[in-house]
Amino acid sequence: MWTELPDLAPRTLRNAYRNGALAPRAVIDALRVKCRSLNEEYRAFIHILDEMETEPFLRRLDMAEPDDLPLYGVPFAVKDNIDIAGIPTTAACPAYSYVPDDTATIVRQLVELGAIPIAKTNLDQFATGLNGTRSPYGVCRNSVLADFPAGGSSSGSALAVALGVASFALGTDTAGSGRIPAAYNNLVGLKATRGLLSTHGVVPACRTLDCTTLLTATASEASMLLALLAKHDMADDYSRPNPHWNGSTSFGALRPGFRFGVPDALDFAGCPESGKLFSEAVTRLEELGGIPTPIDLSSFLEAARLLYEGPWVAERYLVVQKLLKTDPNAVLPVIRNVLDAAPDYTAADVFAAVYRLQHLKTRCDVTMNGVDFVLTPSMPRPVSLAELRAEPVAANSLLGMYTNFMNLLDYAAVAVPSAFMSNGLPWGITIFGRAFTDQYLLSVADAFQRASDLSLAAGRALEPAVTTRCAGNDRARIVVCGAHLDGLALNWQMRDRGARLVRVTTTAPCYRFYVLPGGPPMRPGLERCETGGRAIDVEVWEMPSSELGSFLTQIPAPLGLGKIELSDGSVETGFICEGSALKTAKDVTATGGWRAWLASADG
Amino acid sequence: MWTELPDLAPRTLRNAYRNGALAPRAVIDALRVKCRSLNEEYRAFIHILDEMETEPFLRRLDMAEPDDLPLYGVPFAVKDNIDIAGIPTTAACPAYSYVPDDTATIVRQLVELGAIPIAKTNLDQFATGLNGTRSPYGVCRNSVLADFPAGGSSSGSALAVALGVASFALGTDTAGSGRIPAAYNNLVGLKATRGLLSTHGVVPACRTLDCTTLLTATASEASMLLALLAKHDMADDYSRPNPHWNGSTSFGALRPGFRFGVPDALDFAGCPESGKLFSEAVTRLEELGGIPTPIDLSSFLEAARLLYEGPWVAERYLVVQKLLKTDPNAVLPVIRNVLDAAPDYTAADVFAAVYRLQHLKTRCDVTMNGVDFVLTPSMPRPVSLAELRAEPVAANSLLGMYTNFMNLLDYAAVAVPSAFMSNGLPWGITIFGRAFTDQYLLSVADAFQRASDLSLAAGRALEPAVTTRCAGNDRARIVVCGAHLDGLALNWQMRDRGARLVRVTTTAPCYRFYVLPGGPPMRPGLERCETGGRAIDVEVWEMPSSELGSFLTQIPAPLGLGKIELSDGSVETGFICEGSALKTAKDVTATGGWRAWLASADG
Repeated sequence: MWTELPDLAPRTLRNAYRNGALAPRAVIDALRVKCRSLNEEYRAFIHILDEMETEPFLRRLDMAEPDDLPLYGVPFAVKDNIDIAGIPTTAACPAYSYVPDDTATIVRQLVELGAIPIAKTNLDQFATGLNGTRSPYGVCRNSVLADFPAGGSSSGSALAVALGVASFALGTDTAGSGRIPAAYNNLVGLKATRGLLSTHGVVPACRTLDCTTLLTATASEASMLLALLAKHDMADDYSRPNPHWNGSTSFGALRPGFRFGVPDALDFAGCPESGKLFSEAVTRLEELGGIPTPIDLSSFLEAARLLYEGPWVAERYLVVQKLLKTDPNAVLPVIRNVLDAAPDYTAADVFAAVYRLQHLKTRCDVTMNGVDFVLTPSMPRPVSLAELRAEPVAANSLLGMYTNFMNLLDYAAVAVPSAFMSNGLPWGITIFGRAFTDQYLLSVADAFQRASDLSLAAGRALEPAVTTRCAGNDRARIVVCGAHLDGLALNWQMRDRGARLVRVTTTAPCYRFYVLPGGPPMRPGLERCETGGRAIDVEVWEMPSSELGSFLTQIPAPLGLGKIELSDGSVETGFICEGSALKTAKDVTATGGWRAWLASADG
Repeated sequence: MWTELPDLAPRTLRNAYRNGALAPRAVIDALRVKCRSLNEEYRAFIHILDEMETEPFLRRLDMAEPDDLPLYGVPFAVKDNIDIAGIPTTAACPAYSYVPDDTATIVRQLVELGAIPIAKTNLDQFATGLNGTRSPYGVCRNSVLADFPAGGSSSGSALAVALGVASFALGTDTAGSGRIPAAYNNLVGLKATRGLLSTHGVVPACRTLDCTTLLTATASEASMLLALLAKHDMADDYSRPNPHWNGSTSFGALRPGFRFGVPDALDFAGCPESGKLFSEAVTRLEELGGIPTPIDLSSFLEAARLLYEGPWVAERYLVVQKLLKTDPNAVLPVIRNVLDAAPDYTAADVFAAVYRLQHLKTRCDVTMNGVDFVLTPSMPRPVSLAELRAEPVAANSLLGMYTNFMNLLDYAAVAVPSAFMSNGLPWGITIFGRAFTDQYLLSVADAFQRASDLSLAAGRALEPAVTTRCAGNDRARIVVCGAHLDGLALNWQMRDRGARLVRVTTTAPCYRFYVLPGGPPMRPGLERCETGGRAIDVEVWEMPSSELGSFLTQIPAPLGLGKIELSDGSVETGFICEGSALKTAKDVTATGGWRAWLASADG
């Protein structure tokens, strides 16, 4: 029966629901059957919701039309460390298991948007692992190659999407648990900025670092979901409000000339193919208009080592402490070994490590402020199930080399499929950037996915591209034409705000240019006109969006910031002038720009 | 000789240097003599710089004119946990003492600005205390009443300013060490936002929390110094860049209608006079145009208790650990008792406390986002030297009730003189607000000082008021006249950014009003004009300055944000329109505003 299902893209389902080809109940029933049949081999699900359990969610839809709810009838899987009321949460530890009274905020949000949870998915116990084999509910094999793991700890969630039983899935990611399984299974794994997706109702790993994550087939789906879900949650003490530059409207076409960091040294753990695939990814970004910038990753890697070799394991210990005392054998030996060191760490050890991390972060932030994002492989190379059996700790640690530092340093990251290896295994890159640039990173991931033209997981296809607007990050662009030009009297107002010159260009040929009365400093005004205009010399600068407000409020009348059309037809925020002030101003359009006017006899 | 000195306000000294009435060398020599003569009674100084030691600083000035350097020849005192190269740093513990090779960043900044360090000042040992009696270098008595302490831990720094031997002084403040001595000695104590003033070269107390602070006679001096000194310091891992809304230009006149939180319950430790003086301070702020708002302080006070009753003492322990092991008797017993608990705290204790603090902070932040600042007494009541001798721990703890939570919760605070008690002792309030609103808080403190009309410390006088601009905090004001009006089509763009309606008013009577072509939504344009204009209905909204940039960049042509003159003559940032677009727009000035136009036959 389930072979009759279409692909599970939210867009595909919406169309099918809209034209009556499908109904949510039938889809969920078919997926339930499919989940059960797959589980023997893949061990992806700890609990598949039965008809009684999905019915309340489906009943909500009976009162709605497909277009009433953004996620009407969209099936999703939930990692089994995230609560659904009335269904056991195990965290892959039967002895720890409890039946929650409340549903996690993020599941509740999704249900309110019309989505339907279909299963609780298998994971590395207590989300402590990156491979998907550390579970009493069985080893999660890879969705493509049986000799490889699914990756973890969100192993079952990745499989649910990759095997086509969920449109998307919820995972968690403290050290890489959302990104590694994405990389192993040809998926996008969004580890959004800490605090954007609620962790209320999630079994903690390290509460100060934990993120709820999204596993999707495409970056554009992750972007859509993030825009719907990134709401401040007072029930989550670590929730943070999302600045609006990182809202849904940031998603769009890439501006050429973006700068991306490429580590000057990378460890592929002896896998030349991974090195070659990484180089191809760099080239692909260059072809999209990116400018690679060599960066030193050593401070990032040192921060990564603090996570498991430092006192943060005490956070994990706090979660399992009671069980470890009453029933230590209920915890897998490999997890117990990780936690064994925890009680020995002192308060002073924590503070010493926090100081070290803060020191490293100041270094890493300098790097991050110099680029729009950084590119790494998602892992040095895939490890096999045989390697994990032989070296369960070392092989697992290898996987986290490029993921462990992310939450400690407070960056946002997206794992993106990049290639298939010669053996057929998916291989992926990670794009990471400053906190609160998630939507920008997803727009890069989207462009990268389109340029890569890979087969997507579960028979999915890319949605039409959004090219009608420019993807924005936490930097805003300003077109200046007078005293703010590089080196002139008011330029310091931009430099003091961390602004940098992006390019020197001209306006579209439809402006007149005036010298305003008053000063010093002397200031010009631009006027858009139907006829008699010409192209005026301008500079495009970029500054932190959070500083643009104070830049704006200090601008005196008659000037202000509006929109300026540039010679290439693009439109950017820039200096405009109230018309009334131009009546008494001197027309210097003929000079073509402020520097030329200053150099002239009058200037 | 020293009786011939003028008051030590930077402004007074500059005038005297400028007209040749004084020279820096003579001032410093006179102050050296005065320091020595005062020290027997006040024990304010651990080390008074001799002629050899001040000479290098004075020699810098020989090459400059008074107007070349903002702090030319201004004498300042330095708490003896802040390094000056070549001079011992004791932290009030002779056995801990060392001679630093390097000068602390903040001292170096001041010296480069022309200021002259004159002495290293006494403190509660390792800055662990709030009273000024915990030092082997003697008890710092109060500058006014001999039966009372100077307050601490920056006791000697407060005395240096209060006794007229320094224009200002550097202190540190982890739990209140800069604010309590300010309150005790009729001074302003600025505990700026964590990370604004460098702590590089300062002996740590709790490194994650420590602040370097300023003790001054007036808020306007503190404002001037903060603007000069708040620079990002790469040598300080905890340094943070200062957003420009908190730059020097924020200082100015208060806008009426500011909202200040007043705790609905306060503990004055049985001192009715303190309660009465606090009520008077509330009234004074109301008379300045403030609107008091009752707030619940219980989450703040719970956070305060975490500081000394929780694992943060492990940070202090890290500093003294080695000495405590090799020579425990070198540390004062009262300090040893504080640190004794530190080794028993585990890493898990730290994380549990960090979770609790984060929970409390979410609650406190809601309160802080609802007001412009909060008013408390600086301490429940002053305690006497006799009380401190009788109850050295309890009496000290009482002093910190309203100061201990500040750094844990990441707020900025200013202690301000408010009154003299009937016994003549200074009594003060604390004004605290969100991080990075320091200059705004100082503008409130300045207005409060002017309204209080108290005798200032050391014969100082208030400088002329700055009333030419409005004091700004981290909120920006926007004048809207169309689809952004309350309840209209685009109003959500402001509400989603946390904006609130401040007032409904009209423009000055010099605008014309048009309906622009296009839409929906329909949008109007305002045009300033010489003749034929009228007052147009507008609303003034307020939103986080950090969100204003993304609000601006989404505004399409021909609209933009510039300056609008309001009916009361004030000028605020608001919507303007490019003149070219108005040529084809419909003039609806006669309707007087957008709502009236919408209600009309055409609208």
